[in-house]
Amino acid sequence: MLTFNQYLDMVNGAIARLQYPEQPARLYEPIAYTMDLGGKRLRPVLTLMACEAMGGKADDALDAALAIEMFHNFTLLHDDVMDRADRRRGKPTVHCQWNDNVAILSGDTMLTLATQLMTRARRFDLLDLFNRTAIEIYEGQQLDMDFESRDTVALDEYIEMIRLKTSVLLGCACKTGALAAGAGDDDAQALYRMGVDLGLAFQLQDDWLDVWGDPVTFGKEIGGDIANNKKTFLLINALNRATGEQATLLRQWLDTSSERHDDKVKAVTAIYEQLGLKELAQDEIARYSRRALQWLDSVKMGNDAHEAFAALINRLTRRDR
Amino acid sequence: MLTFNQYLDMVNGAIARLQYPEQPARLYEPIAYTMDLGGKRLRPVLTLMACEAMGGKADDALDAALAIEMFHNFTLLHDDVMDRADRRRGKPTVHCQWNDNVAILSGDTMLTLATQLMTRARRFDLLDLFNRTAIEIYEGQQLDMDFESRDTVALDEYIEMIRLKTSVLLGCACKTGALAAGAGDDDAQALYRMGVDLGLAFQLQDDWLDVWGDPVTFGKEIGGDIANNKKTFLLINALNRATGEQATLLRQWLDTSSERHDDKVKAVTAIYEQLGLKELAQDEIARYSRRALQWLDSVKMGNDAHEAFAALINRLTRRDR
Repeated sequence: MLTFNQYLDMVNGAIARLQYPEQPARLYEPIAYTMDLGGKRLRPVLTLMACEAMGGKADDALDAALAIEMFHNFTLLHDDVMDRADRRRGKPTVHCQWNDNVAILSGDTMLTLATQLMTRARRFDLLDLFNRTAIEIYEGQQLDMDFESRDTVALDEYIEMIRLKTSVLLGCACKTGALAAGAGDDDAQALYRMGVDLGLAFQLQDDWLDVWGDPVTFGKEIGGDIANNKKTFLLINALNRATGEQATLLRQWLDTSSERHDDKVKAVTAIYEQLGLKELAQDEIARYSRRALQWLDSVKMGNDAHEAFAALINRLTRRDR
Repeated sequence: MLTFNQYLDMVNGAIARLQYPEQPARLYEPIAYTMDLGGKRLRPVLTLMACEAMGGKADDALDAALAIEMFHNFTLLHDDVMDRADRRRGKPTVHCQWNDNVAILSGDTMLTLATQLMTRARRFDLLDLFNRTAIEIYEGQQLDMDFESRDTVALDEYIEMIRLKTSVLLGCACKTGALAAGAGDDDAQALYRMGVDLGLAFQLQDDWLDVWGDPVTFGKEIGGDIANNKKTFLLINALNRATGEQATLLRQWLDTSSERHDDKVKAVTAIYEQLGLKELAQDEIARYSRRALQWLDSVKMGNDAHEAFAALINRLTRRDR
């Protein structure tokens, strides 16, 4: 078993070795640009770790790991078009650097390239899992967009949305590595559940960091969700819990235009804190994190593999960026 | 061997039986809407015909045929976003009926649904062909967009673009049916080449109909390519052949704004006719059509199957709509 950073090096090395045709340049340059932007590479590392934890060789899962990372980057590329996001990882997004059409078509190409990578292992179980997960992710993205235009979103609807949009791909990454190593269905499924719970903790942590994170270490502006009235775990709980004057105040701030960005972020954060949401969210993150660790415990693997996963889960769900 | 219309009924029946989840409605309704718009269904019918011509049962190729039709409709959906097309088959396009984001995400979903359909046969050769063809089609679409902003396009570049954007999917449709029937590599490849040549003839016929077609039977406005200075087989040849005053006149019309639509279409059509392009294009269509028939002749199949393909090639390359 290697360390996270050693698997990360394997992934980054393999991504650097990916070759794209030279022409048409406006099709392939945005793909290379997107793949070279970096990022945590969490999903492909999970695949390699799960593969080795279940007795396989990381090399045997490398194409599948790349497929999942390519797919993930395709979803980011198209999401950025849909969200009109200007920047990603400190650089202009593809639709800003080129244009919308280039972003749409390069994204389509990345999806098929990802499918080709996933097909290389000649395993229909991997391909079925990959395709099914892709469909769930589109459903999650559509729900996320639907929620924007809705007045209220229930907490369980929100959790289901982030499960689909974010978590199932982490589950898929873990299960793919396990299956590539020849693990049995029960173990593979337990690692899938581990990945999903890790993903839920991870996304709730993202909601939390958007409010209480350190802008320098988090690397994004703080309060973006509040400014945009995004129906996160925090806002949904706040709307459920606030009563009387607090509820009125919260509603007033939601109706306040984004010109008063700093005041709004400060005021809504204060309401969240009065409602005990800082601790509630941490408890919920800890709960999903514990559940992920329980799924991990249910799978027989070497001590070093178990420790590596446990350390990763703890690190990711207590992260500050 | 059934008739074209009987295979068409099989395809339309299978499309009508496709089930989509009810939620999220804004993800799946545009997919059902797109698949129900109709169209020639040429590609899936070719797959079923090729399968039966090579001794298979059409049913065995039905999922693959649907995969190809779903993929084709996905490309139309995303192309319509990129081209800002308002209408398709007499109805509003998805991005007009809903919005761009819905069109992007529903299209992504259709691509994965198509891949799932193609995966059902558990044949990696079919899947590899499908993925490789998809990549070629994206390359063709990118070249088509690149050509718009270029001053000149060579004839062989144009032919290569339409080969990628349009023809390889017809080749893929034929080869997929042949492979599903268990045909040998040589026969499957000959039917692929037949499909590609048919596709080239088909696209050149489209260029021709845009100028000399009957607007009623063609179902589209005549002269759209001329009005938009689209670098078709005709315009590229006209620019190559026109000299002296004729060349000057052609250049002037290309610089004329689209406000003088009718005058421009009339004048450029006249130049095309003076240059003999009406006949040149027909000769070229006939040449590709003959090549398709030669590839057909090279494959051993029953008389009725041979006749059905030959009739289809003749009908499609002499079509008026």
